[in-house]
Amino acid sequence: MTDIPLGGGPEFDRIRAIAAALGPAATGLGNDCAVLPPGFGEVVLSTDLSVEGVHFRREWLSLEEIGWRAASAALSDLAAAGAEPVGLTASVGAPRDSSSDELVELMRGVGAAAVAVGGRVLGGDLARAPAWVVDITVVGRSARPVGRSEARPGDLLWVTGTLGGARAALDAWASGGTPAAGARERFAHPAPRIAEGRWLAAHGAHAMLDISDGLGGDAAHLAAASEVRVEIDLEQIPVHPDAVACALAHGDAVQAFAARGGEDYELLVALPKRFDDLEARRFQQDTGTVLTRIGRIRRGNGVAATFAGVPVALSGHDHFA
Amino acid sequence: MTDIPLGGGPEFDRIRAIAAALGPAATGLGNDCAVLPPGFGEVVLSTDLSVEGVHFRREWLSLEEIGWRAASAALSDLAAAGAEPVGLTASVGAPRDSSSDELVELMRGVGAAAVAVGGRVLGGDLARAPAWVVDITVVGRSARPVGRSEARPGDLLWVTGTLGGARAALDAWASGGTPAAGARERFAHPAPRIAEGRWLAAHGAHAMLDISDGLGGDAAHLAAASEVRVEIDLEQIPVHPDAVACALAHGDAVQAFAARGGEDYELLVALPKRFDDLEARRFQQDTGTVLTRIGRIRRGNGVAATFAGVPVALSGHDHFA
Repeated sequence: MTDIPLGGGPEFDRIRAIAAALGPAATGLGNDCAVLPPGFGEVVLSTDLSVEGVHFRREWLSLEEIGWRAASAALSDLAAAGAEPVGLTASVGAPRDSSSDELVELMRGVGAAAVAVGGRVLGGDLARAPAWVVDITVVGRSARPVGRSEARPGDLLWVTGTLGGARAALDAWASGGTPAAGARERFAHPAPRIAEGRWLAAHGAHAMLDISDGLGGDAAHLAAASEVRVEIDLEQIPVHPDAVACALAHGDAVQAFAARGGEDYELLVALPKRFDDLEARRFQQDTGTVLTRIGRIRRGNGVAATFAGVPVALSGHDHFA
Repeated sequence: MTDIPLGGGPEFDRIRAIAAALGPAATGLGNDCAVLPPGFGEVVLSTDLSVEGVHFRREWLSLEEIGWRAASAALSDLAAAGAEPVGLTASVGAPRDSSSDELVELMRGVGAAAVAVGGRVLGGDLARAPAWVVDITVVGRSARPVGRSEARPGDLLWVTGTLGGARAALDAWASGGTPAAGARERFAHPAPRIAEGRWLAAHGAHAMLDISDGLGGDAAHLAAASEVRVEIDLEQIPVHPDAVACALAHGDAVQAFAARGGEDYELLVALPKRFDDLEARRFQQDTGTVLTRIGRIRRGNGVAATFAGVPVALSGHDHFA
């Protein structure tokens, strides 16, 4: 892999340094195009843009964590489709005063995230930019990609893992503090729920999304795409332990705090009613991840969240606000 | 297409506005993943990052031109592979003071470039950024993707179209002037050579690249990837008419000026010796584009450019210098 077929020049030296650092985590760098091997099923693609000062700050994360997080955020979209990752392309904009070593560190994180889910770095592009910019396009395959539009009245709504950890880290940084280790890990090192997404797709998921915009925001996407009403029982929401402490310290209701945070990269899934608690236990045995029922799909539109029967307004996380 | 399945919020309103403006040029926006239809051949991917202040300036180009140029630069990599475009994803970073109308204008250019080569906008991502950033990932299909590594000693080296037009525009802007209309068009509105690339792939091209880093730089990539020596006869290089005038005004040798410019997005192709002038005329009849023989492939390594037998040093264009 260190024998990258490019001529001389600083940009190409950087590509060589990345290929040397990534080893088998990268294939075919230095060509105009990445070529996917022919294979089964449909090809699915997704893109996720991370910008310094908007999605992360250098004071919060190492460059390796920035790379991991950017790649995992994009891979999380494959998880939501129930797809198997093939690989990714990475476009990186680097500030003028950054070094080749820093770029390699960032790409180590991208490569580690790809390899962690069985994928590779297939290609990319490098350029100068006024801040660190990482755009990741992921490619996966799925015999039957799960979308957002097939949730049906009568389905039950489930969520993987716990929510609120990433928000607890962001809140700590925003108030000048240091996040609890578990909360920081959720923000810096999210694990795309690939195995969980494939399991749920194989067990009849009608619709699935990753929770990147916050539970309220992503439930609203599900309601709009499936033309249904999404009802959420906030008291059922599984909350990350560090989010519990953070919410209590702020005097916030714990579940509302967790539901309003974004970037947890857990899966929100509508499953047919026949999918019961026994199935949920099987999911947990097979994947090591908890699955919690948090609501239901009805005829209608929009999202209705209640806490012990009292309506609660949820707002999503908006990267453009 | 205006019925985008997303909840409320400024980011999603922008996606709706883009989908409304693009109409049939976009499909499946607002989902986690784009799904490619199953089909023949191998899937090829390429990514190209364009950054304001590095690759373009707002004073030079309209936002629609910025979008067209970013998409065409990425599509040009599919042309070099001899691939048929399927579509693209677009990640756009927009400055805080930019409007939804400006974002839509940029995406109109992206969509127009995709449609011009039979493709679509398949998805993307939006975020705030300190400057305009456009990252395009293109997806294509090819039964036999052409790479850079199969040029062989004895092959002849050809180039499509004319070179130097984009550099003539950049030089005019750099010196505070206004480019000639033809030169400006070459920079603002490059046409990816898709039909040309597919024709050449079908007629036995051994290796092919698009000239984005300048003829010298891209010939060096070809030499490195194929482990051959590339000889270029500079006097044969087809020069854009506005580059002739610009080079003469600077007192530069016309062909050296053209060979040292980047971003022309013409194709550099190694063809077997049996591909002759008669075949080149057929190419021109079929595609409307000229094809000019400019050198040959020999055993050895590196690039040797001569003008009337005198060695001339060519340097490439480096986005990281």
